[in-house]
Amino acid sequence: MSNSFGTIFRITTFGESHGVGIGVIIDGCPAGVALEASHIQAALDRRRPGQSDLTTPRKEADTVQVQSGVFEGLTTGTPISLFIPNADARSDDYSHIAHAYRPSHADYTYDAKYGRRDYRGGGRSSARETAARVAAGAVAAQLLAHFGVTVRAYVSAVGEIEVPVGYEELDLRLIDSNLVRCPHPETAAAMEARIRAARDAHDTVGGVITGVALGVPLGLGEPVFDKLPAVLGHALLSINAVKGFEFGSGFAGTRLPGSLHNDAFYTDEAGRVRTRTNHSGGSQGGISNGQDIYFRVAFKPVATLLQPQQTINDQGEAITLAGRGRHDPCVLPRAVPIVEAMTQLVLADLLLRARANRL
Amino acid sequence: MSNSFGTIFRITTFGESHGVGIGVIIDGCPAGVALEASHIQAALDRRRPGQSDLTTPRKEADTVQVQSGVFEGLTTGTPISLFIPNADARSDDYSHIAHAYRPSHADYTYDAKYGRRDYRGGGRSSARETAARVAAGAVAAQLLAHFGVTVRAYVSAVGEIEVPVGYEELDLRLIDSNLVRCPHPETAAAMEARIRAARDAHDTVGGVITGVALGVPLGLGEPVFDKLPAVLGHALLSINAVKGFEFGSGFAGTRLPGSLHNDAFYTDEAGRVRTRTNHSGGSQGGISNGQDIYFRVAFKPVATLLQPQQTINDQGEAITLAGRGRHDPCVLPRAVPIVEAMTQLVLADLLLRARANRL
Amino acid sequence: MSNSFGTIFRITTFGESHGVGIGVIIDGCPAGVALEASHIQAALDRRRPGQSDLTTPRKEADTVQVQSGVFEGLTTGTPISLFIPNADARSDDYSHIAHAYRPSHADYTYDAKYGRRDYRGGGRSSARETAARVAAGAVAAQLLAHFGVTVRAYVSAVGEIEVPVGYEELDLRLIDSNLVRCPHPETAAAMEARIRAARDAHDTVGGVITGVALGVPLGLGEPVFDKLPAVLGHALLSINAVKGFEFGSGFAGTRLPGSLHNDAFYTDEAGRVRTRTNHSGGSQGGISNGQDIYFRVAFKPVATLLQPQQTINDQGEAITLAGRGRHDPCVLPRAVPIVEAMTQLVLADLLLRARANRL
Amino acid sequence: MSNSFGTIFRITTFGESHGVGIGVIIDGCPAGVALEASHIQAALDRRRPGQSDLTTPRKEADTVQVQSGVFEGLTTGTPISLFIPNADARSDDYSHIAHAYRPSHADYTYDAKYGRRDYRGGGRSSARETAARVAAGAVAAQLLAHFGVTVRAYVSAVGEIEVPVGYEELDLRLIDSNLVRCPHPETAAAMEARIRAARDAHDTVGGVITGVALGVPLGLGEPVFDKLPAVLGHALLSINAVKGFEFGSGFAGTRLPGSLHNDAFYTDEAGRVRTRTNHSGGSQGGISNGQDIYFRVAFKPVATLLQPQQTINDQGEAITLAGRGRHDPCVLPRAVPIVEAMTQLVLADLLLRARANRL
Repeated sequence: MSNSFGTIFRITTFGESHGVGIGVIIDGCPAGVALEASHIQAALDRRRPGQSDLTTPRKEADTVQVQSGVFEGLTTGTPISLFIPNADARSDDYSHIAHAYRPSHADYTYDAKYGRRDYRGGGRSSARETAARVAAGAVAAQLLAHFGVTVRAYVSAVGEIEVPVGYEELDLRLIDSNLVRCPHPETAAAMEARIRAARDAHDTVGGVITGVALGVPLGLGEPVFDKLPAVLGHALLSINAVKGFEFGSGFAGTRLPGSLHNDAFYTDEAGRVRTRTNHSGGSQGGISNGQDIYFRVAFKPVATLLQPQQTINDQGEAITLAGRGRHDPCVLPRAVPIVEAMTQLVLADLLLRARANRL
Repeated sequence: MSNSFGTIFRITTFGESHGVGIGVIIDGCPAGVALEASHIQAALDRRRPGQSDLTTPRKEADTVQVQSGVFEGLTTGTPISLFIPNADARSDDYSHIAHAYRPSHADYTYDAKYGRRDYRGGGRSSARETAARVAAGAVAAQLLAHFGVTVRAYVSAVGEIEVPVGYEELDLRLIDSNLVRCPHPETAAAMEARIRAARDAHDTVGGVITGVALGVPLGLGEPVFDKLPAVLGHALLSINAVKGFEFGSGFAGTRLPGSLHNDAFYTDEAGRVRTRTNHSGGSQGGISNGQDIYFRVAFKPVATLLQPQQTINDQGEAITLAGRGRHDPCVLPRAVPIVEAMTQLVLADLLLRARANRL
Repeated sequence: MSNSFGTIFRITTFGESHGVGIGVIIDGCPAGVALEASHIQAALDRRRPGQSDLTTPRKEADTVQVQSGVFEGLTTGTPISLFIPNADARSDDYSHIAHAYRPSHADYTYDAKYGRRDYRGGGRSSARETAARVAAGAVAAQLLAHFGVTVRAYVSAVGEIEVPVGYEELDLRLIDSNLVRCPHPETAAAMEARIRAARDAHDTVGGVITGVALGVPLGLGEPVFDKLPAVLGHALLSINAVKGFEFGSGFAGTRLPGSLHNDAFYTDEAGRVRTRTNHSGGSQGGISNGQDIYFRVAFKPVATLLQPQQTINDQGEAITLAGRGRHDPCVLPRAVPIVEAMTQLVLADLLLRARANRL
Repeated sequence: MSNSFGTIFRITTFGESHGVGIGVIIDGCPAGVALEASHIQAALDRRRPGQSDLTTPRKEADTVQVQSGVFEGLTTGTPISLFIPNADARSDDYSHIAHAYRPSHADYTYDAKYGRRDYRGGGRSSARETAARVAAGAVAAQLLAHFGVTVRAYVSAVGEIEVPVGYEELDLRLIDSNLVRCPHPETAAAMEARIRAARDAHDTVGGVITGVALGVPLGLGEPVFDKLPAVLGHALLSINAVKGFEFGSGFAGTRLPGSLHNDAFYTDEAGRVRTRTNHSGGSQGGISNGQDIYFRVAFKPVATLLQPQQTINDQGEAITLAGRGRHDPCVLPRAVPIVEAMTQLVLADLLLRARANRL
């Protein structure tokens, strides 16, 4: 049950890091959405490994195959199957971890839960699974485009280096103008240096990604349990390495008095209802209010290190794990399209769900 | 669909702030769990209004009625229906907001989504709905007790006033020793003063609640989308006024290098697998690893103020909303049992789900 | 999980035969549907016990209480809670079955599954639970009325006595013109005599209910697993005592050659697509095609008898069970509103689901 | 949403008749089940086209690829992806139906629902989709084998030709001893002749499949909505061409008096609870009681004919549709493994669900 997400626009992913490939089935996409493989490939290219010296050297073309659900360039309302073959899967790279429990990885918990695991490259627990999410997100993005919704994300912190201004003061078209995917050029340069320093120290570094959704229609999000931020939080907290989520004023907002935190309503010249501030982050009572949706997602430092670590094997014996494998010193630049994808999937689903609320 | 939560241990809540009452149906509780109304009532008494001068003066006994699913003191495996009548529902108190959109409340978004709303006391969007969650959480707690799982939460920050140490240095038995539900007595006193100051200023204040789950078995949480922290985040972000969630090292952990953040495994004297640190917060790869689960939840300041506010009515006209109504200056003390309840509901559900994973 | 039905228009029932009462929560009903308690009560009155000498003498007013989700005569989009108190619950009537396994009842299987049961009146397994379904069906009927959909059911066979013509040759307004709810007056008279003969012989009799849905829009039903007849079959086979379901030409249709079974398309004078025959029963590929939907549902004879029966107790010992209790000699007349309700619930849900299929 | 089935053991199918291929993702299969591609292939071989002169001449090897979820011959608890490439997909065969609505096919309803369709070979509405179900059923069968459950189905009627005895008087090992899959050799011979006669007349013929599940543990099936026969009925009514479902005594049982229909309990020599008759079909109150589960499924005659038919095109104009294409004169022999697969899927799911009912 755990490999599906969404209620109406619903995805199911499958595949392991070193198996035949990974993929996703999208069920519930309405008929009539324009969809080409190129839409999906463009998203995958932003996530794929080996795209710069800041990322893992594993070489994966991540070429998507559209297997069903599209006919003559339009979705048909039937399930859309997307498959991404694994190309550069060197299983022998991983024999050294067949019996080791890598610190802060899922080796131990998978063994405890299932009694066995595909240890090659982390198997199902590998972040390679997120390629399937990015592919599905690209389909959601095509649906959202019909309704004028745009989702963007960017790296707002790497370690202690933070973008000094809010999203509304940034030119989001600059996100892809540098390797780190930060639209504040000076900060981006510092971040790149910080990541290279971590890499050179055989260490890793974490950070924060900020996400923004523009043009979200009024009324998305379901009261009570499936409030927009709750479903969005679920989606983002399900990404490998994520440790926290806050939207609107977030944790900082807990220090404001209510009189300053409340967002005063007014009617603008066009007759639209607006708020003078947006501490609510575009959601009130769990339902979108027409303002921008924005949020922050915390990523821990990558757990795979190029230095030896003390740990145990599956017999409980103390061992020293040598630093090996191909990995990213910082996951943030490649996580930007993943954050976008999960946000797109949530909004597409809530958009379809909202249709059933009124006669 | 949005009024249910959980996959196997599944709850559905109903009811409005000023209707006949509120309630919850619990479907999927195994047969044979010892359950008395008193277990539920004890939890409700910690959430009910009017319990101290720090909370709303609305008087609600919140007396629970167990309507089904229990026979001779044990659950039968059939749905458990819990009903809590509304006693002190003064609907005339709310006629002034029938057409007003209160800032940072859900009046506007409900109207936008549904075309109408029960405006009395906020109707369905009122935090009164959380009484039903607390009642359900008490049932989950009875189930968890069978497996040795204990969940506790406490107020760790009110505005800028924070508990200076981590949960592991606190005596959690002191949580209910003061009105604010903070087990650090000196900080508790400062928090109480801070809340009274907000109340006297006709303002409100937010804060942070820390939650801890002890004794959680290995293997809870589903890979990929229903990771333990993702489902927990969903649950907690669905509570009224919540703006953020982080677990383990959280946002602060993004600043640590991987070499310090990784939790080294070792085998203790009893032969159990442990980690020397617990930045992971008891979850690796989304699955519980036997260490303590801990997390933080951010609550914004209460949106209802005893001071006039500028806003609009449902015709889009600017109006001044007078400060009225019965409300809390700070929601944190009463939110402690809600955070516990949602955590209990998540763990009960994941515990039942985990049973299907192995032959 | 098993006490809910529906995907978007979703109901959850609770309650036992001899507890406080029974009820249902309806989640997902759109806002703006006109709903009064009287709509629901009228449906319940057709199902309630004691309505004629053909039914059980148990006296239940089955008075519904609308507890939430309706404001000023219209649904609000929030959960609708309906509660029906048990009035004439004589628990002492059932002490004789506390340890007995009644033949063809659920006593044994509940004990086997749950390790315990509320034996009073059959507890949760009692057909009393269907009162909650009928109440929910009345809400679905109000929603369907907006879209011009009408659902009717009638008794088409009691034992070997069958209505000799199809539904299209009957005046369905005559359904409630006799106690047995059969719109073919001569057959109805014979059926009544048949039921009284069974009652006088301290025996029981089964039969068939035919259901018809008129005005169903094109496009309801989901391809593959949730085909309209599949979901409808699921709903009807979940009613106590049901043993079979067939739609359109059903089992008899298996004997026709394809050349006679196929429904030829034509365009009528109004330009609408029609079929010359309707062996398909209004569904092709699982999707409604605008023709009438019709089906038949088989009910076994009531298992409770007023004569002694050989059986065992919960220790596995052979016992003779005396004939006692209040029950129906034939469940068919009271099952008509249940069949209608389940059909209404299915169509309401499929109607809301269909909205998500096109942009 | 409609392309998934099951709650815990949950499958999602995808693919069209003339696309790249079809497939299925199985989520929720426990870890540790022995699984080889050969298990799945054996099931597919019984369903595949071209296996005899009684079936369609379309040649499909239906070779399955296991893409994930299995490691070293055992399931790992992660999703199992099975893919079956389409080999003999002659799309040009179908250009003549691009704009025609074939009688009693889904062409018209798909167009009405989605506004477009992949017309090649019926696209998603083709029974080719059931290959994915058969593949998934083979995995369910491996799980069921652990618990001693066996599922068998056979053709019990072709047109008016019926097996004269019940399943308990047949040797089910003879099912595959003839082309028609009927374990009653004399009847099988008559059925084969009947099918060849239909084929030679350029017509088609329907029939009935009987299914049996042996060794089903006590306690499978959920009370109220997900009763074992209700879920099973849902599954079987979702198969293409199915028009009816009955279990146990079925429609015929409606004519028995209760005193003859009731199944008397007794304790056998081994101390097990048994019933002297089995009109209940192995389910009481929707829960398995340890007796054999048996049921009948009605299949209409195949709608594709090798003779001209009157119909309309997508402009509503009357046309004559020539008889073309490759199809089966009778679907029954190839439907036997589909009925088995759906039954296996239902039982595997209910078996896993039942685990959550007791502490």
